[in-house]
Amino acid sequence: MHCELNKERPLILIVNDDGFEAKGLAAMVELAKPLGEIVVVVPDRTRSGMGHAITMNEPLRLMNYKNEDGIAYYRTNGTPVDCVKLGEKVVLRDRKIDLVLSGINHGSNSSVSLIYSGTMAAAIEATFDNIPAIGLSVQDYSANADFTAAMHYGRPIVEKVLEKGLPPYTCLNINVPKVSMEEIKGVKVTRQCHGVWHEDLEEHTDPFGRKYYWLAGHLERHELSDDTCEGVLQNNYISVQPVQFDMTAHQYIEKLKFLEQ
Amino acid sequence: MHCELNKERPLILIVNDDGFEAKGLAAMVELAKPLGEIVVVVPDRTRSGMGHAITMNEPLRLMNYKNEDGIAYYRTNGTPVDCVKLGEKVVLRDRKIDLVLSGINHGSNSSVSLIYSGTMAAAIEATFDNIPAIGLSVQDYSANADFTAAMHYGRPIVEKVLEKGLPPYTCLNINVPKVSMEEIKGVKVTRQCHGVWHEDLEEHTDPFGRKYYWLAGHLERHELSDDTCEGVLQNNYISVQPVQFDMTAHQYIEKLKFLEQ
Repeated sequence: MHCELNKERPLILIVNDDGFEAKGLAAMVELAKPLGEIVVVVPDRTRSGMGHAITMNEPLRLMNYKNEDGIAYYRTNGTPVDCVKLGEKVVLRDRKIDLVLSGINHGSNSSVSLIYSGTMAAAIEATFDNIPAIGLSVQDYSANADFTAAMHYGRPIVEKVLEKGLPPYTCLNINVPKVSMEEIKGVKVTRQCHGVWHEDLEEHTDPFGRKYYWLAGHLERHELSDDTCEGVLQNNYISVQPVQFDMTAHQYIEKLKFLEQ
Repeated sequence: MHCELNKERPLILIVNDDGFEAKGLAAMVELAKPLGEIVVVVPDRTRSGMGHAITMNEPLRLMNYKNEDGIAYYRTNGTPVDCVKLGEKVVLRDRKIDLVLSGINHGSNSSVSLIYSGTMAAAIEATFDNIPAIGLSVQDYSANADFTAAMHYGRPIVEKVLEKGLPPYTCLNINVPKVSMEEIKGVKVTRQCHGVWHEDLEEHTDPFGRKYYWLAGHLERHELSDDTCEGVLQNNYISVQPVQFDMTAHQYIEKLKFLEQ
């Protein structure tokens, strides 16, 4: 399975975590269509909250389920990160991918949600191979979320990234507030704010008397200053956070030398 | 389901990603047994490479499958990160957890493997609630890996962390080289080295003529200097990396202001 495409325009791989039927995928394709050659590799079902999971203990399937307007669409039983690996190593093997776009995600990936997010994990996966990548999300989890503002403000950002690139091993985490186009005040470059998900783990009982739990909760946000993702989102700005994958707490290396033996 | 325990000793939650039958889990319990009250919450099967995945689209089950030597053992259909959430919010609800230990993992979690790792994701999850946490891994994927050195060098680190704590919102990623106890030269505090997994995505064909892929590969390591995880591991030192969850590329915020609108 190996896709031959026009080599004259930027090659854009689109992935997501909401699966091949998501409205947000169609919106991302619309956003990107004028900007380059597009190939889509997405999960065959919703894979939200998959973080950086990969599929190691079962085989990966890959199906070319549609070809439309010169765009080849593939779906897989794999995770969002697997979509990037399959895109790079199978579908577009031997071709240089110019940009990975992930989303448009139904739901916010600001603050620590970034770390749970399959959308952002796919973007981060691309940066391991130094491919510029953008994750684009709206603060609306509903299946019928409105992507008008995300497309309107997202396209010029994608165009600038295609023109100027991104710093090495860096991707962007773009989050769009859930307000009308008219209420959006602009786009700010931000840092990740501190936050924590408070879970309820709702207890239920099945018809056989056995307990089970639903994981649900809400994000408690800290650091709502005007340089953070959540800080600008609450003021109706779009947040653009540069993301990298070194998770070292550099500031504490010296302090922890007492652990050396 | 709510566990009552002795409140006079440190309360340690042990999780892993290799599941309840893993030899590494038994080794971690042995390591921690003299140091506090222990509760175990682990997956009901191997959940390696799960990253920070959580279970949102199906119910979570939790079973108290064993009580032995004063230790309560629970297993779940959830991910390693779910184990921490279930431990905190269900099994030990209303109790203060003093330390989360994750592992001992069969396989290295150095370099970017940290980001794919369920073991380390569980440790990072604990830091969201500012609970000190340690992920402990050996560079040996085999089911029968030797945990002697990990236990020998790991226990004093756990003791020091119980005594002095860790910096706020920080966990440790400890990796032990695959050499005999005698060959280990000591313990170094390190930073995450740059690296990338090169995947093969081996193509096979099933009896029905359909292709499928196995995700396999090897880690290409960069930055083998003596201050990085892989740098010290190749010289037979144990690597202790402090880990935090802010993934912002702070160094590029100013440079990317041209994306503002």
